[in-house]
Amino acid sequence: MNYDKYFSISAKNARRSEIREILKLTRKPEFISFAGGLPAPDTFPVDLLGDICRDVLDERGEIALQYGLPEGELELRDEIRKWVAKDGIEVTPEQVFITNGSQQGLDLLGRVLLDPDDTIIVELPSYIGGLQAFRFYKAKMEGVLQDEDGMRIDLLETKLKELADKGIRPKFIYVVPDFQNPSGVTMPEERRVRLLELAREYDTLIVEDTPYRELRFMGEDQTPLFALDDDERVITLTTFSKIFCPGFRLAWMLAPTDITVKLNISRQSTDLCSPSFNQAIVGEFISRGHLTEQVNHIKEKYAAKREIMLEELEKRMPEGVSWTKPEGGLFLWVVLPEEMDAKVLLQDYAIPRKVAFVIGSAFHCDDSGKNTMRINFSFATHDKIREGVKRLAEAIGEYAGFMK
Amino acid sequence: MNYDKYFSISAKNARRSEIREILKLTRKPEFISFAGGLPAPDTFPVDLLGDICRDVLDERGEIALQYGLPEGELELRDEIRKWVAKDGIEVTPEQVFITNGSQQGLDLLGRVLLDPDDTIIVELPSYIGGLQAFRFYKAKMEGVLQDEDGMRIDLLETKLKELADKGIRPKFIYVVPDFQNPSGVTMPEERRVRLLELAREYDTLIVEDTPYRELRFMGEDQTPLFALDDDERVITLTTFSKIFCPGFRLAWMLAPTDITVKLNISRQSTDLCSPSFNQAIVGEFISRGHLTEQVNHIKEKYAAKREIMLEELEKRMPEGVSWTKPEGGLFLWVVLPEEMDAKVLLQDYAIPRKVAFVIGSAFHCDDSGKNTMRINFSFATHDKIREGVKRLAEAIGEYAGFMK
Repeated sequence: MNYDKYFSISAKNARRSEIREILKLTRKPEFISFAGGLPAPDTFPVDLLGDICRDVLDERGEIALQYGLPEGELELRDEIRKWVAKDGIEVTPEQVFITNGSQQGLDLLGRVLLDPDDTIIVELPSYIGGLQAFRFYKAKMEGVLQDEDGMRIDLLETKLKELADKGIRPKFIYVVPDFQNPSGVTMPEERRVRLLELAREYDTLIVEDTPYRELRFMGEDQTPLFALDDDERVITLTTFSKIFCPGFRLAWMLAPTDITVKLNISRQSTDLCSPSFNQAIVGEFISRGHLTEQVNHIKEKYAAKREIMLEELEKRMPEGVSWTKPEGGLFLWVVLPEEMDAKVLLQDYAIPRKVAFVIGSAFHCDDSGKNTMRINFSFATHDKIREGVKRLAEAIGEYAGFMK
Repeated sequence: MNYDKYFSISAKNARRSEIREILKLTRKPEFISFAGGLPAPDTFPVDLLGDICRDVLDERGEIALQYGLPEGELELRDEIRKWVAKDGIEVTPEQVFITNGSQQGLDLLGRVLLDPDDTIIVELPSYIGGLQAFRFYKAKMEGVLQDEDGMRIDLLETKLKELADKGIRPKFIYVVPDFQNPSGVTMPEERRVRLLELAREYDTLIVEDTPYRELRFMGEDQTPLFALDDDERVITLTTFSKIFCPGFRLAWMLAPTDITVKLNISRQSTDLCSPSFNQAIVGEFISRGHLTEQVNHIKEKYAAKREIMLEELEKRMPEGVSWTKPEGGLFLWVVLPEEMDAKVLLQDYAIPRKVAFVIGSAFHCDDSGKNTMRINFSFATHDKIREGVKRLAEAIGEYAGFMK
């Protein structure tokens, strides 16, 4: 039976991602994959969780196993309110909205903010999950190039002016300002302030997606856009996936109450609520003070892995290849010589050597960035990082030799 | 700041539901609410879960706390495959798709099957969460009346013919064939077979939403539509919320592989995957054989509550009021004398007496059913059921007196 005639247009057009198919290969144990964005499993707080599960079930099992609220359980929202206060963020529990990972937050924002052909502004490169979420709602995406300090504000201003001249007001500007996925770069405060000024001037919102902010290994903390904003124009997404574990699928948004009210209504027809059980456990984990230890533990592990990866890149990479040196997060960004195509590198040179990464063009809304790639350093062990970079350097060397 | 100009059209139109606002009042402890669809918390397997959480964390914590697959973890999908085999359903794990409650299943089906102005057929009355999910995708809903055996197939045939004459092929027929929410009625096999024949004749799909099927207190099991279907036209949704607990937010769909492939792609941009942790625990719960005990335990409890509610209704309800006598599930359906309006009854007579229900018109895609209401019997204790029906009967009596 052919189901094509039953599918929606978007489902009909949806194809299995070519990259995803390639990356499936790389799950085999002999592969070294720098492709995923997976946290290191040896950071997961397995022992603490066993105790907390038992206590939550004993003390309030009947509530923790029942349906919850679309916006999330009050206990967890209140713990989050207290947690973000350290970053200069003051919110009420009504401004905190719990989601199943930040991906659901991005999807719900698409639902609540976007109509077909609405314009939004994204970074070049930008987080692929954000692009996918907004694409479903048929947003027109305008890309603004990054440099080593994130989105270039001069180019943003030009873009906003251009759009305004055509009578177009973008619904929002989507940025990942801290240790960006994919590039690893961070936006300094001066630029954040300018970004907020431009948002006000051109009357648009900012969606600040910041899963890695807490994972800073060096350098100075940057104030969240949400904390710098006096104008209630910022919606911030943060996730427990990177500072706790992904297997609970919990994240949160901070937003003006007018927006969380709409998210709440929207949530009722999508999946009702996040699991009360998971929320009770995470709330308890924070209230017992474990989240700070957990973040420190993760930072220590990832800082060491970053160090090794940068050393190996320095040692092994052929001339003409450059990369970012992120002060935190999970990823760095490699730029190949202009004539190279990362997709060819992956398919013809890296995969046969059993090493993998994600091609950079996947993160570009305009399909540019052919000679770029994203490398993850949080998942692989120290030895695998060393061996993987060696294989990658050999792959690039061979590709370069072939091109001569 | 006024956010209206930033919202999507659907968000702009979304209003807090009036009913929901009324029902918020009823959460106070002095209220007896027959409104929600909540399982009884004293059925939740609190003790067993404590042990299983510990074992899952000890034995495979690093996997259970990591990201999972969009379609769900293989272990759980395989347990489900074995579980449904008892109902005559043969599927491969590729046909099983895990979601965050069936509500997410309904939403994903909307995404994958519906374009704006596509026609679908629903029951009168129908599950409110289904209507909300499909409404978001701008489906045109055609209602077909039920009788005590579910959707009237004669009227369905007339409707399909009418639509075909206008060149319209509905994308699917949405039915809740077992102890329907809201009405409590069940479709007998003969009618199921006719429904499948009509789906084939008019070349449409069937979405079978069956959260309560396992909770039969009496009478004969009816074969699922999925098992009767030789033509791969049926998609079935079932949830762990009613046979295990809602606080894990886990449910599953059975569908042809061509459809689960599209659901998989769609899931990647909505929320990536369901929590691996919850899936590992439920998989273990089933593989240890607890689900059968759990279902029996729930059935015993709810059968007793249904009995009490039917007795009290019989004893207390004024003349001219009738109700269904479901053989299972969580709900029954009350029909008031035609001149009565359930909304007036709720606001002016029931709420002041601190008893609540859901008005029937909310379940009708065409806003009909003004004189009907849904009553839940799974949540309240025996004493509260007795007292609640007494209050409700008094409310109806007073309303009737006022109308004379």
